[in-house]
Amino acid sequence: MCYKKAMFILLEPQKRKIPCAPELSLLAALQRRPNLAPPSLCGGEGSCGKCKIKILAGGVSEPSQAEQQLLTPTELVDGVRLACQTFPRETVTISLVEGNALSAEYKTRLALALDNAVVEPVSTKKYLQLTPPAIDDQVADLERIYHALKEQGLAVDDTAPGLLPALPRLVRSADWQLTATLRDRCLVDLEAGDSSGKHYGVAFDLGTTTMAAYLVDLATGRLLAQTARTNPQVTFGEDLMTRLDRAHQGDLATLQQTAVAGLNELLARLLADSGVQARHVQEATVVGNTCMQSLLLGIDPYYAGVAPFVPALQVVPELPAAWLGLQIAAEGRLHLPPLIAGFVGSDAVADLLTLDFDQPQPPHLLLDLGTNAEMALSVEGRVLACSAAAGPAFEGARISCGMRAAPGAIDRAVWDHDRLRCHTIDDQPARGIAGSGLISVAAVLQRAGLLNRRGGLRRRELPEGLQSPDGQGILLAAAEQTANGEPLVLTWKDLGEELVIARAAIRSGIEILLAEARLPWQELARISIAGAFGSFLDIDDALAIGLLPPLPAEQIGGVGNAAGLGAVKILLAAGQRRRARRLARQTSHVELSGYPGFNRVFARHMTLANKTRP
Amino acid sequence: MCYKKAMFILLEPQKRKIPCAPELSLLAALQRRPNLAPPSLCGGEGSCGKCKIKILAGGVSEPSQAEQQLLTPTELVDGVRLACQTFPRETVTISLVEGNALSAEYKTRLALALDNAVVEPVSTKKYLQLTPPAIDDQVADLERIYHALKEQGLAVDDTAPGLLPALPRLVRSADWQLTATLRDRCLVDLEAGDSSGKHYGVAFDLGTTTMAAYLVDLATGRLLAQTARTNPQVTFGEDLMTRLDRAHQGDLATLQQTAVAGLNELLARLLADSGVQARHVQEATVVGNTCMQSLLLGIDPYYAGVAPFVPALQVVPELPAAWLGLQIAAEGRLHLPPLIAGFVGSDAVADLLTLDFDQPQPPHLLLDLGTNAEMALSVEGRVLACSAAAGPAFEGARISCGMRAAPGAIDRAVWDHDRLRCHTIDDQPARGIAGSGLISVAAVLQRAGLLNRRGGLRRRELPEGLQSPDGQGILLAAAEQTANGEPLVLTWKDLGEELVIARAAIRSGIEILLAEARLPWQELARISIAGAFGSFLDIDDALAIGLLPPLPAEQIGGVGNAAGLGAVKILLAAGQRRRARRLARQTSHVELSGYPGFNRVFARHMTLANKTRP
Repeated sequence: MCYKKAMFILLEPQKRKIPCAPELSLLAALQRRPNLAPPSLCGGEGSCGKCKIKILAGGVSEPSQAEQQLLTPTELVDGVRLACQTFPRETVTISLVEGNALSAEYKTRLALALDNAVVEPVSTKKYLQLTPPAIDDQVADLERIYHALKEQGLAVDDTAPGLLPALPRLVRSADWQLTATLRDRCLVDLEAGDSSGKHYGVAFDLGTTTMAAYLVDLATGRLLAQTARTNPQVTFGEDLMTRLDRAHQGDLATLQQTAVAGLNELLARLLADSGVQARHVQEATVVGNTCMQSLLLGIDPYYAGVAPFVPALQVVPELPAAWLGLQIAAEGRLHLPPLIAGFVGSDAVADLLTLDFDQPQPPHLLLDLGTNAEMALSVEGRVLACSAAAGPAFEGARISCGMRAAPGAIDRAVWDHDRLRCHTIDDQPARGIAGSGLISVAAVLQRAGLLNRRGGLRRRELPEGLQSPDGQGILLAAAEQTANGEPLVLTWKDLGEELVIARAAIRSGIEILLAEARLPWQELARISIAGAFGSFLDIDDALAIGLLPPLPAEQIGGVGNAAGLGAVKILLAAGQRRRARRLARQTSHVELSGYPGFNRVFARHMTLANKTRP
Repeated sequence: MCYKKAMFILLEPQKRKIPCAPELSLLAALQRRPNLAPPSLCGGEGSCGKCKIKILAGGVSEPSQAEQQLLTPTELVDGVRLACQTFPRETVTISLVEGNALSAEYKTRLALALDNAVVEPVSTKKYLQLTPPAIDDQVADLERIYHALKEQGLAVDDTAPGLLPALPRLVRSADWQLTATLRDRCLVDLEAGDSSGKHYGVAFDLGTTTMAAYLVDLATGRLLAQTARTNPQVTFGEDLMTRLDRAHQGDLATLQQTAVAGLNELLARLLADSGVQARHVQEATVVGNTCMQSLLLGIDPYYAGVAPFVPALQVVPELPAAWLGLQIAAEGRLHLPPLIAGFVGSDAVADLLTLDFDQPQPPHLLLDLGTNAEMALSVEGRVLACSAAAGPAFEGARISCGMRAAPGAIDRAVWDHDRLRCHTIDDQPARGIAGSGLISVAAVLQRAGLLNRRGGLRRRELPEGLQSPDGQGILLAAAEQTANGEPLVLTWKDLGEELVIARAAIRSGIEILLAEARLPWQELARISIAGAFGSFLDIDDALAIGLLPPLPAEQIGGVGNAAGLGAVKILLAAGQRRRARRLARQTSHVELSGYPGFNRVFARHMTLANKTRP
């Protein structure tokens, strides 16, 4: 008999039951359920060591070679395993290993400054008191509503078909007292009684790593609630290119569903926090990079990610929320601002909107730094933009002990009495190093004269205690200061290779944008750094390693979640949507990969020195 | 143990297997599957005797009292039963009793005269040869298509979201040679290669009794195929008011699904006949009376059917075909012309369009006669319309041996050598009498001087052989001439009550329309009778019983399926849709039930005499 017994993963404390099979890794089984799987940098290849889970009960495969290398003996004894390397032999009970929550600090830093935003939403609600029909007034129910709206100065000539079946009963049970919702001269909702004050919208900032969501009152423009979470797609690879590959190889639908599930979970939290009902959330916006946007729409992002880097579309059609499965009002609509290029997405457009890049202003450089660094320059009414493949170093990937800006991540370091002192987010025991910490450590070494121009360490000159016991790199935290009881080490390769490449990519992008605009760096009035990274980054550290042109530090600053703020502005006003569209159209995209002499510029910036010949 | 064994109805020769249960009548079980159930006039109450089936195998309940009255002994011996009265005891094999097919004659008479129709469809197809992208030409896939369309003079600024996921792969696999379909400046389909010549539409005439469908080439305006079938909703009651009640009492969803299934079946036949693919059928139109239209849209028609007779809507929004489940192209659209009132539907608007009621013409009266008779009068640029509740006599209901115009129905009679000779449709053995036959028989009696002015028969003067052996009425056909071997009898009540009421309702409507327009009947230039009934009706017979004002017969005529023709014209041209909308808006509806003195007019016309005081 070939009868298979049903096998499950019992997930604690979530009390979830997920079917699994002996030939399927626990990671693959968990990935079939949105929001449950642990993160994975390598996409399940057993090389990143991030998809840690703990086996509480039940038999599984023996630890693989990869696990023996990537997990500590203590972890192995405790039942900690890599989900991608572990295969169930029977029903198993597991828990996820903590450490992917967003830090409170992160959330605070991304709070929105939503003042003086224009409130002019694309939909309108109106309370109507209709005259009931009579034998000498046989106007149809729908036309009766149209006439009443017209009397209030609101032209309407269409109705969402979904409203029709309930119409005759609704108007009568409501005793002809109704609230109508209109969008683009189309009736999109009808409610009994007066609910004209209940009119809301939700804006999402869909980042590769983090999703943030903002609930706004469309009548007043007031921010009612905000929340954020890790993008649940991280289980398919933390970096963008891994996800792009997974999507191209057949996981597109799963990646889409995962993104939508993540947005819906954020929405549910916002609704719970504010007491707003989903049916009153009529408008939604999502900003994100081109790849995230493609995955959300179920579009294979592959062709935008390989030469000639052509995105599927620039201006996204207005989407019925129901088409995507976004659980707002039945006829709610989702607006995605346009993108600029394959690697300059609608999040960059939202940044530009927030920083008024369509208004005349002194030369202004915007940087949004991540695996992919987007940059834009405003010079004399022109906007130029480019993207540089910085690699995932700043987001924690490819760095031996890298992690993202989560609790326990080293986010900065100082040289204090001949000792390296590292600060961790939320003051937790050290778990790894974030992008800002990496730059900070490099800056410390640079200032102490311990780096040569290529970023190489003058290893012979390293003070005692700075070098790791195994001689493999810099000791960031001793075993007693870390979460897992192992010393935390930044390797020579992390510094001399990964960081140098990231720095070269970004600085090359900046220099090429300036060259295209024929603007000497000295004439820049301002450099703004958007996003989480900009909030954590120490400007002096960034200048110390030459990540930025050597402007005075006071001309450089983080601007918080400019993309999220732009998403909310676009949510609130039709005019802002037109602005975003104009901005995207008018921005000149500079394709670095096709740029003559790019390689020479890049090579020149392969250093951690702060005096670069521009 | 309370374990129920699964029970089924096995339907032969269709080879269908339908679940059933001992507490559910066979009719109710069959009604759960669209298109399989037999017709029912009474909606399953055991009083109409129409839902005949034949038990081929398996045990069922004993014949009820109703069945013993309504079925002949021969039928009972043969296993014929009424499905609404029969309950299964086990799995049973049954067949439907024939006789509900449309006659060939009927179909021929409703052939469309589709000449010189304006061809200006609401969607357009265009073959595009795009320039492939390059590193210095990174225009997005979608915008690349927009630009190519613009070069061909076609403005486009939106895209159906459903096209997005496949877009990048499609354009590349098609090697940038594509056919785009546009509607309202919106891209609604993309196909690899050149399919610009494959562009079709389907028009449906959704009647209470019959559904007809027409497949048209939108490029040439040519009619490619047509077909018709019984409206499968007849199983929920042949007449409109029974269905209206059923819908209001909870069967709305089933009635809707049944209508959609019927349309889809007709569509499938058209596609099979023509070799056209469903994905190339981009446009659809449906005309029908207000109740049929409501049921199709899933709207409870109840409020349009009771005073003050207010329909849910007059102008129907454009509908995504997918919303309704109509199996044309994925982004295909369904257009329903507007209606005029609760009992003057879009079929009447289509009639008016076909007869150019929006053009100046000599006084013209249009009649569309059925259970509900719609009438419209064109006088000096004005259009007035009303509806009269004629009752279902002309459609075969409430008449003891009534049936619709199907094979075996008596459709006319002549007085020949002191004998009544009846003609049946398709020359089949007589099965019942159709509306035109009923009028014909009455006219014969009228001409022979056998009716008094109230429509009462001078029974004592009836010639031998005209009276039925049981003395209950007129013998239409002797036992040896009928399909079931029983004599066919038209009762005194059929003639003196049902026909008289129908005649009075119609004639009252005509007189009130004329009075409202202050037009003496003598000034009518033309009377047109639309629909199947008009095609079968003998004008002289109709004049003989005073159904119509006594114009010369040559000024009166059937105009075939004017509604179906109107539906096709509307399908073919955006301009015709605007015309229909203007016609509906400009037509003045005269509500007879609120008309002062209606009862007096009605009473005056309660006769079968041909000389009525107007």
